[in-house]
Amino acid sequence: VSPIKSIALLGYGVVGSGVLELINRNKKSNFEKYSEEIAVTKILVRNLDKYKDDIHSNLITDQFQDILDADVDIAVEVMGGLEPSHAYVEQLISKGVHIVTANKDLIAEFGDSLHKVALDKDVQLKYEASVGGGIPILRPVEECLIGNRIDNIVAILNGTTNFILSKMYSENMGYNEALKLAQDKGFAEANPESDVMGYDAARKLSIISSIAYEKNLSWKSIPTEGITNLDEQDIENAKYIQSKIKLLAMSSVKNNKVYASVRPVMVKEVSQIAKIDNEFNGIRLNGDAVGEVMFTGKGAGKLPTASAVYGDILNIITNRKNRYEFRRKKVENVEPYWPYTSKWLLRIASEDKAAMLGNIFKVFSNYPVELMNTTSLDLLVVVEVGNEEILNRKIDELMDSPIVHSVKPLICLDEESL
Amino acid sequence: VSPIKSIALLGYGVVGSGVLELINRNKKSNFEKYSEEIAVTKILVRNLDKYKDDIHSNLITDQFQDILDADVDIAVEVMGGLEPSHAYVEQLISKGVHIVTANKDLIAEFGDSLHKVALDKDVQLKYEASVGGGIPILRPVEECLIGNRIDNIVAILNGTTNFILSKMYSENMGYNEALKLAQDKGFAEANPESDVMGYDAARKLSIISSIAYEKNLSWKSIPTEGITNLDEQDIENAKYIQSKIKLLAMSSVKNNKVYASVRPVMVKEVSQIAKIDNEFNGIRLNGDAVGEVMFTGKGAGKLPTASAVYGDILNIITNRKNRYEFRRKKVENVEPYWPYTSKWLLRIASEDKAAMLGNIFKVFSNYPVELMNTTSLDLLVVVEVGNEEILNRKIDELMDSPIVHSVKPLICLDEESL
Repeated sequence: VSPIKSIALLGYGVVGSGVLELINRNKKSNFEKYSEEIAVTKILVRNLDKYKDDIHSNLITDQFQDILDADVDIAVEVMGGLEPSHAYVEQLISKGVHIVTANKDLIAEFGDSLHKVALDKDVQLKYEASVGGGIPILRPVEECLIGNRIDNIVAILNGTTNFILSKMYSENMGYNEALKLAQDKGFAEANPESDVMGYDAARKLSIISSIAYEKNLSWKSIPTEGITNLDEQDIENAKYIQSKIKLLAMSSVKNNKVYASVRPVMVKEVSQIAKIDNEFNGIRLNGDAVGEVMFTGKGAGKLPTASAVYGDILNIITNRKNRYEFRRKKVENVEPYWPYTSKWLLRIASEDKAAMLGNIFKVFSNYPVELMNTTSLDLLVVVEVGNEEILNRKIDELMDSPIVHSVKPLICLDEESL
Repeated sequence: VSPIKSIALLGYGVVGSGVLELINRNKKSNFEKYSEEIAVTKILVRNLDKYKDDIHSNLITDQFQDILDADVDIAVEVMGGLEPSHAYVEQLISKGVHIVTANKDLIAEFGDSLHKVALDKDVQLKYEASVGGGIPILRPVEECLIGNRIDNIVAILNGTTNFILSKMYSENMGYNEALKLAQDKGFAEANPESDVMGYDAARKLSIISSIAYEKNLSWKSIPTEGITNLDEQDIENAKYIQSKIKLLAMSSVKNNKVYASVRPVMVKEVSQIAKIDNEFNGIRLNGDAVGEVMFTGKGAGKLPTASAVYGDILNIITNRKNRYEFRRKKVENVEPYWPYTSKWLLRIASEDKAAMLGNIFKVFSNYPVELMNTTSLDLLVVVEVGNEEILNRKIDELMDSPIVHSVKPLICLDEESL
């Protein structure tokens, strides 16, 4: 293996400049231990004019061909988005260049095909920053916990939605007000769709689950519900049962089948996952040897993300190879319905609450039913059923009645059932 | 580098049999990827007779010389204790054998000298299991967070004392009753001194702090206070200010000086560290790039410990070298006094509470003083001072009065000051 000498940055925005900051500041303490020649030799940007006065202007180019032509050993992709990132990364891997990326969209979408090329070329493709930002998670799972069969993941993987939900809970903000605040603080983008619809969390869940279960999962097969349907009443309802609503990314393996979902969940205020507030992320997993372990920290931001990217760069320099042979496997789909016995809070809008309640007890006659906060405008009941398919059938039955307008289910999990 | 073929177990007790269980069960999925020949070839035990009928009896010996003579590549030290573990490990390293150990006593006491031999022999010495049991912590800090300057660690590193304190808090048990329960459950040893006096936590704190700060710290220079002086009244006092008492292992770096201590701390019930209960461990650290990250999980037990040992074995097999050059540095002492502005709860036994209160306001005339729960038998006040040296001087002044019997200080930390 020839030693690493030359690093290229693809992208020089917030994260890219953070990575360069860490590289320069740690040059003496880290890089020079391995080789005095290691340096950033090229930086790819979109708009050359913006960087005319940058101290690194001599390294900057807007031509991808310059990167390809340079004798680069590691390319750090921090441009984001799918294209041209995907095309660039694929060409570089084919040329034998190691890749470090923070791009969860890229890995969730093309990780499979990129890994195949990387495995063939014996090139490293690393993306610790793509899940949980700066929180060490992919490598601890892949290396430290390798002796375990991991069967369960419960995580808060999107800081934007967690911030919004935290503000709705702790400061009684409405959804739109909280979203606006998140945008003002730089936690949410002008177009927040990928965050608030849950897609960002689903992508990250597919990445961490694929590694934990050594299966090749497609993020598109994960049932995904965002937070856009939640209002103040839902938060009120949660408080009434000493719970918070969190957008949880959950997956589990049972009988070699993978269940996964991203959805709002009522979690007891006293549970550990409920303590992860604002822009923080948390990942809890269960291994059959280690038991439950949990990792928390900031899931995004310039330096947290750069921290993870930098760790990956050092790993390549020190010739630590990742495995990911499971990427050669056929893509597996996930089970679409929550397969476990759980409580669900049903928020039912009806013109006749009394008659509706009778209806509910009839439809759920074989299941535990609990009536909640009767002062609420909507009828609120908590039911316990064996899985989500049963629940959906029961909700369909409820909807058959002419006096019901809508039924909104929210799963309720306590520490034991999480 | 010649490939790893032969593994020896030094010790075949609870952890040793857990390690063998993980090795055998993961043989196909892990070992055989690297070499079909990797196998456990020797097991060292103290009492040969006990293992006559063991299915691995053909591998078992009670002669260390057999291990030395065998062509062993990795030795897994899970005997515990200082000697003969230390002598065995040192001889094996000198012979060029890689070491994986779960033994925090060994590493805290002899890590320094063992590392020097290991660095000279280019041999790996790994001990992920020595801190936090199965929780991935040493490698994530050393590798994933390598771009950070870590300046602060707050941790619960001893499951036994955390279990005892949890029971005293949640079930109003006395110290002795809770200790007895911990012993019955197998969390505490017959001689619990090393746990309840805080030594075990101090050893672990020196190990994780050394790696995080890349300094060579001596566990013996860490001021250490256990939980043996805590009684029901202290727990009551904690509850009165919405706090729990946790045995915290804390260290920080400021102006290149290391502060460290192990001591009981009042932490707000709402803080994340307060949520780590019973036998669980938690390590929170602050890096200048990543911000605060926290790792929680089971800090001890057969399979959690084996999980970490197994991860280390796989790392050696895949030729991932650790660094630890800081071990060549001179051993640094730590600052003995808490150097930050904090609140302290003083529990004062006095024959004249009213006069004593006047005394307190005189002695702490320039500092904020708050009178607490006046129905308590002892006088309870919360004072805020700039550091522990000031506090100690003030307590000395209080003790000058003839009407005071004792002053018991407990530091009070909220999420911000932790």
